[in-house]
Amino acid sequence: MSYSPLSVETLAARLGGVEAIVARLGRDVSQWRGREVGDGNLNLVFIVESEASAVVVKQALPYVRLVGESWPLPLKRSFFEYHALMRQEARDPGRVPKIYHFDEQQALVVMEYLHPHVILRRSLIAGVVHADLGEQLGRFLARTLFRGSDLSMPTSERKADLALFADNVALCDITEALVFTDPYWAAPLNRHTSPELDGLVAELRADVDLKIAAQDLKLTFCAHAETLLHGDFHTGSIMAHGAQARVIDPEFAVYGPFGFDVGMLIANFWMAYFAQGGHERFPGERDEYREWILGVAVTIWREFVAEFSRLWRTERTGILYPRALYEDQGHSLGAEQALGALLHRVWEDALGFAGVELHRRILGLAHIAEFETIADPARRAPCEAKALKLGRMLAVARNSLSDLAEIHAIARRLERGEIG
Amino acid sequence: MSYSPLSVETLAARLGGVEAIVARLGRDVSQWRGREVGDGNLNLVFIVESEASAVVVKQALPYVRLVGESWPLPLKRSFFEYHALMRQEARDPGRVPKIYHFDEQQALVVMEYLHPHVILRRSLIAGVVHADLGEQLGRFLARTLFRGSDLSMPTSERKADLALFADNVALCDITEALVFTDPYWAAPLNRHTSPELDGLVAELRADVDLKIAAQDLKLTFCAHAETLLHGDFHTGSIMAHGAQARVIDPEFAVYGPFGFDVGMLIANFWMAYFAQGGHERFPGERDEYREWILGVAVTIWREFVAEFSRLWRTERTGILYPRALYEDQGHSLGAEQALGALLHRVWEDALGFAGVELHRRILGLAHIAEFETIADPARRAPCEAKALKLGRMLAVARNSLSDLAEIHAIARRLERGEIG
Repeated sequence: MSYSPLSVETLAARLGGVEAIVARLGRDVSQWRGREVGDGNLNLVFIVESEASAVVVKQALPYVRLVGESWPLPLKRSFFEYHALMRQEARDPGRVPKIYHFDEQQALVVMEYLHPHVILRRSLIAGVVHADLGEQLGRFLARTLFRGSDLSMPTSERKADLALFADNVALCDITEALVFTDPYWAAPLNRHTSPELDGLVAELRADVDLKIAAQDLKLTFCAHAETLLHGDFHTGSIMAHGAQARVIDPEFAVYGPFGFDVGMLIANFWMAYFAQGGHERFPGERDEYREWILGVAVTIWREFVAEFSRLWRTERTGILYPRALYEDQGHSLGAEQALGALLHRVWEDALGFAGVELHRRILGLAHIAEFETIADPARRAPCEAKALKLGRMLAVARNSLSDLAEIHAIARRLERGEIG
Repeated sequence: MSYSPLSVETLAARLGGVEAIVARLGRDVSQWRGREVGDGNLNLVFIVESEASAVVVKQALPYVRLVGESWPLPLKRSFFEYHALMRQEARDPGRVPKIYHFDEQQALVVMEYLHPHVILRRSLIAGVVHADLGEQLGRFLARTLFRGSDLSMPTSERKADLALFADNVALCDITEALVFTDPYWAAPLNRHTSPELDGLVAELRADVDLKIAAQDLKLTFCAHAETLLHGDFHTGSIMAHGAQARVIDPEFAVYGPFGFDVGMLIANFWMAYFAQGGHERFPGERDEYREWILGVAVTIWREFVAEFSRLWRTERTGILYPRALYEDQGHSLGAEQALGALLHRVWEDALGFAGVELHRRILGLAHIAEFETIADPARRAPCEAKALKLGRMLAVARNSLSDLAEIHAIARRLERGEIG
């Protein structure tokens, strides 16, 4: 049948013939119970349960759910999500949901129900600590980014994959416009905490160096097809339960620069850091939690570097930096020098991407729950202002920042109001 | 019919039914005269003439002509050449040969016969001056590179085009291996003037910083899909007659960094500069010609910058650096600052690519006529050594060189043996 959106009422009739689902939920569809739980910006998401088991059914809508039918969006994003999930599973097994079924025409993916996992943002609002979080995320970044690049893949496969994902134009367009451009002018879909932030927003939009940095980063995002990105790797794309983190929603997948996923993810921890002041019951209540958040960022980068370096030394089988030029000529130190220089470029890009992410989540269309759930603008705005200021510094000074210790020292002083 | 290579004997029978050719050469194929003139590394090239006119027929062979059937090469390169020629014609009208006919299955392109143009290398060996050369080449670079990028094109078109050309894997592979990797180790297909250069070659292959620079540049070439490149833009891909220069042979076309075509082209003028010592009848005979060559390089870069800047100001209609962020907010100086920074990155990349081009043409598989026609190795080797040394400096120090005046001062001192 041609594409048709599912509903709770039609789930059983529509999916009762799919063997991969029946095998899990049982053949008696009268016992299936479905509910719609999509709280994202784009899609329908159902949980379908029976006595035996449960699955998630994610179906693309032909428009942006957050905005409505006035903003059409191709169903094919489901195809890209499916293909990205398959590659991520191969590159870091067990980190993404298991895929049970994909129907390209219906733009739907049936996958593992992660339970009782919650979207990580909820933990970051509630002040919940997850053990091993940064380690898992840092390794996921290293494995997916390294193994999706010409450092590892046969280049003919990478080029075919690049061509495949180059068609993910519509979702790229969202990133290109909403992350890199719209926050820096009065774009119609923008919103921000007003009037409390109006002055700072005007200042940022008049900041030529910042606007050049943002567009330099956009060029890097658009053109530097270094590896297959998740493309939307924030704390709303992570589900956590205790010491287990899982990664979901890679429908923005596209080839791009190594630093993009890294920077976007760390920026979301920094926003959670600055949001704590809006959630604590008394000043200082969340001080320990604030430090845990910064610690996660440190661990993500440390584990990313450690795992990327390990893969560099053991899986560098692609056309770039071949062993024939280094180790095989007795220049293993040269290979380490090249690794360090590459990681430094990733670091600089990541800081820049983090900077624009801090801006677009406060000035653009898509905001984050950590700030949005602070009901009082007088309390929300100062949290957001600190994130905006850090973002400006990161984007403009990304080539002259040494390490996270330096950046976190600045973040803490911003948080305490000592600088601004 | 299925693919079959043409020969002088079968030209008339095979092409006599093609209306685009008949319209030029006349219907009486008994009056057609064909000859094979392919002197390149890859393809069959015929000139077919009649009383009325003449055309060039270029047909891909299923292997590398220079090496033989042991190195297969896809016929589809003809498809990429055709598509690149069409785009170049649209972006800089009149600079490439007119296309009369394309047969994808036979991998053949029928095009304008450029007469009495000669391959520019022949002029550079003979000491022939062409007026307006740098101007035409600099403008061609600016127009094709600017108009093939997200600075100008609708990004959905660029992405579709990126996917199309991503399939040009086999020719990319030649560039990736032969330009960036093989010169820096004892690859089987390499050759160099031996034993005169053996010591310097060993030194370069032990130079870790150089080998890292070469691979950093390879990553840039492979991943930074900024614009549609010619991909093989050297002085053997230019035909000149008097003050007219034409550009041919874009079968290596692929999306890559702005600086690649620019750097490769200028490097070929630098090699012609250092080769003059092998062609002059007495020391100093070619001094004026040497300076003309350096002047062409200066003009290429100057015109490239001027035309790229003009297009930036008048045709910046793509998603990058939109006017909404700069001019429309009263920040036209900001747009100029962004342009300057972008051109500076192109400059640095171009110098790096020039450096590796200087190496691969002397150490790798594909050499150039300017050096190869110097029969005496004792005369050839010192010319090549100077180019190798300049190449090393460019690749490693590309981020700290100010302008061509500085580089040409060094080139002149190298040429005179004052430094080395």
